[in-house]
Amino acid sequence: MSATAHELNLQAYAEDLARRAAAAAGELAQTSGSARNACLLHAAELIQRREAELLEANRADLERAAHYGLSSAQVDRLRITPGTLAGLRQALVEISEQADPLGEVMESRVRPNGLRVEKVRVPLGVVFFIYESRPQVTVDAAAICVKSGNAVILRGGKEAAYSNRALYGVFAEAIAASGLPADSVQLVDVPDREVVGHLLALDQYINVAIPRGGEGLIRRVAAEARMPVLKHYTGNCHVYIDRAADPAMAERITVNAKCQRMGVCNAAESLLVHAAAAPVLLPRLARALLEHGIELRGDERVRRLVPEANPATESDWYAEYLGPIISIKVVDSLEEAIRHINHYGSHHTDAIVTADAESARQFAARVDSSAVMINASTRFNDGGELGLGAEIGISTDKLHARGPCGVRELTTYKYLVYGDGQIRT
Amino acid sequence: MSATAHELNLQAYAEDLARRAAAAAGELAQTSGSARNACLLHAAELIQRREAELLEANRADLERAAHYGLSSAQVDRLRITPGTLAGLRQALVEISEQADPLGEVMESRVRPNGLRVEKVRVPLGVVFFIYESRPQVTVDAAAICVKSGNAVILRGGKEAAYSNRALYGVFAEAIAASGLPADSVQLVDVPDREVVGHLLALDQYINVAIPRGGEGLIRRVAAEARMPVLKHYTGNCHVYIDRAADPAMAERITVNAKCQRMGVCNAAESLLVHAAAAPVLLPRLARALLEHGIELRGDERVRRLVPEANPATESDWYAEYLGPIISIKVVDSLEEAIRHINHYGSHHTDAIVTADAESARQFAARVDSSAVMINASTRFNDGGELGLGAEIGISTDKLHARGPCGVRELTTYKYLVYGDGQIRT
Repeated sequence: MSATAHELNLQAYAEDLARRAAAAAGELAQTSGSARNACLLHAAELIQRREAELLEANRADLERAAHYGLSSAQVDRLRITPGTLAGLRQALVEISEQADPLGEVMESRVRPNGLRVEKVRVPLGVVFFIYESRPQVTVDAAAICVKSGNAVILRGGKEAAYSNRALYGVFAEAIAASGLPADSVQLVDVPDREVVGHLLALDQYINVAIPRGGEGLIRRVAAEARMPVLKHYTGNCHVYIDRAADPAMAERITVNAKCQRMGVCNAAESLLVHAAAAPVLLPRLARALLEHGIELRGDERVRRLVPEANPATESDWYAEYLGPIISIKVVDSLEEAIRHINHYGSHHTDAIVTADAESARQFAARVDSSAVMINASTRFNDGGELGLGAEIGISTDKLHARGPCGVRELTTYKYLVYGDGQIRT
Repeated sequence: MSATAHELNLQAYAEDLARRAAAAAGELAQTSGSARNACLLHAAELIQRREAELLEANRADLERAAHYGLSSAQVDRLRITPGTLAGLRQALVEISEQADPLGEVMESRVRPNGLRVEKVRVPLGVVFFIYESRPQVTVDAAAICVKSGNAVILRGGKEAAYSNRALYGVFAEAIAASGLPADSVQLVDVPDREVVGHLLALDQYINVAIPRGGEGLIRRVAAEARMPVLKHYTGNCHVYIDRAADPAMAERITVNAKCQRMGVCNAAESLLVHAAAAPVLLPRLARALLEHGIELRGDERVRRLVPEANPATESDWYAEYLGPIISIKVVDSLEEAIRHINHYGSHHTDAIVTADAESARQFAARVDSSAVMINASTRFNDGGELGLGAEIGISTDKLHARGPCGVRELTTYKYLVYGDGQIRT
């Protein structure tokens, strides 16, 4: 086949996928919540029954990891264990137990002319989900979409192709068994990158694109998509230690936010310490971070208190390291901390450690981020941790949905207006 | 000044406006609901006190209407009367009486580890509102933005320049009197079109663009804007007369939806009649429409029943006439009506006239539009009519807000997470 014919075929393939998804979405939106829940519970059961087969598929990916040049952190994310599958089953059960969002009457009023106005929750339609690594996300995303009545087109990374296909196969079987439209969940099963571009052009069928992965992937999707995109580019998250911080809590939260898992979007990248607390606290925090193998990059005042710190440059305040580096700054006031975070941060997740209720209130009100943590680790900005059951992504956008996006965030509404012949005068 | 220097000045001017708006937005978000309401009520008072001055400014625009080649419908939209101003005062009072959306705890839960998770309503930030004609929209938009804690940059049409400036002046005075940040509401006061393009590029300061006017304006804004856009392109609204429709109600609603005001987005452009009802009903509906001077364009079956109808072509099913023409089609089933509307419509507003509860239920569930009217005119899809007080626009988008956009639709939320030192394990 010539290159052009191949390209034409990819375009036709993408259009076929999208058209099927749109048709399935129309049907899926009309199904009962119990049918959609039955699908999720059946998938949980199949994951248990097919455990050996799923682990085998994952081994095939792990064997090719070296071929794709994956780092050990990437291999770690790729690996599926019996524990991973138990977590997936748990997430499926939790999502199935959530209230059905569809048909919810969000607002209702009767107008003076007798019209009854209802604002009713409905699905978005078709979701195009593009993700890298972490194959279990295949099931999380499919489950969130089916629960919310949205058809989904899944496009995973090539490094997880076997695992994704096996997990998709299980979910597809659950869909068939529960009588939902077969095309409610589809997997892009050609490796060519061009097919993503073709799908991103099909805004007549696809209502939203959700990229999840590295900044490069997300920027590409945001630039190419003709439909709205739910996303965050980076997570430059801050921990601010207020003058009234408890030292042990400050250390515990700083270390957890930075070190518990370094390659994720809600890990801390920057530490701000109030000048009044710095002389006592900063050496202690620095020691704890150094013991975890973290490189410190500080401003002048930090380096006077912590000789091990390297000098920070302007670009460090913007950096999302996703690894064992942290930038540190001494600030003269809560106000300066808030201004620094709103200026240099990525509006993702920022934490304050303080015993002062007024500082906490000010910080919560003025820091313009999707999640603000008061005396808790930044690592909690996560759908599971915040009680959404699972998430399809975390949004730093302000329109539509912000923060972790679960089932409700994949819905919109329509107005239903019931009259008995009213006309406008 | 050279063309290039002028262009550079426009860019600097746009950036200055946007930067001021962003700074004001941060402050406005922290003001009390009572201060924002006081501003609205003060504006209402000033509109009454300055009535003569406002009408005088409007006369200056009306005198130039011929120069701009405005049609009589356009002149009509441009005209401000004492009744217009009374309506504005009423809208200001209604908006001031709405609950303050800011700070509303939309969801709240305590996690097993003791974390308290709150989803709290906050403003979007900065709104750029671009509108044509209807100068009173200046005040509606300013009021909705201030109430919702958003700074707004207003850009009205040149044909309403005097009226817009006068109304803006009144609102700016109310802002000053109530102690809100002066730059909360700004008016673009240079005529050059290029300034709109410059503002649409400033997504670091402006959070959403809302165009309101003709399709050309909206397409230009959607194509150029780097920030999200809340909009509808067209309103190709349908009235579907079911087999079980009451004839008098069918006539009343059809005539109102088509004829009460023809140049607006929620006017009907297409009439669908069930085949079982057509022989009796269609001649009656046709006669009523012809008496209102409407040109009928029908398919074959329509023309057999209504000899006065001209033939409809495929493009008629897509058309938004905004004038005295209607397309008419006979359909064999409710299902065919729904498919026709979802395929040819603009997902704006569609109505069913029926006495059959199951037909109404099906139509409400399956028609994929921002508002579905059951036994009521399409003309009711309007913020005031649906009880939102006023609207800044009507959205046919599915992400963020759909249908009429009032105060709540100009907000987003942030997660506030309260802990006592929790870390993630």
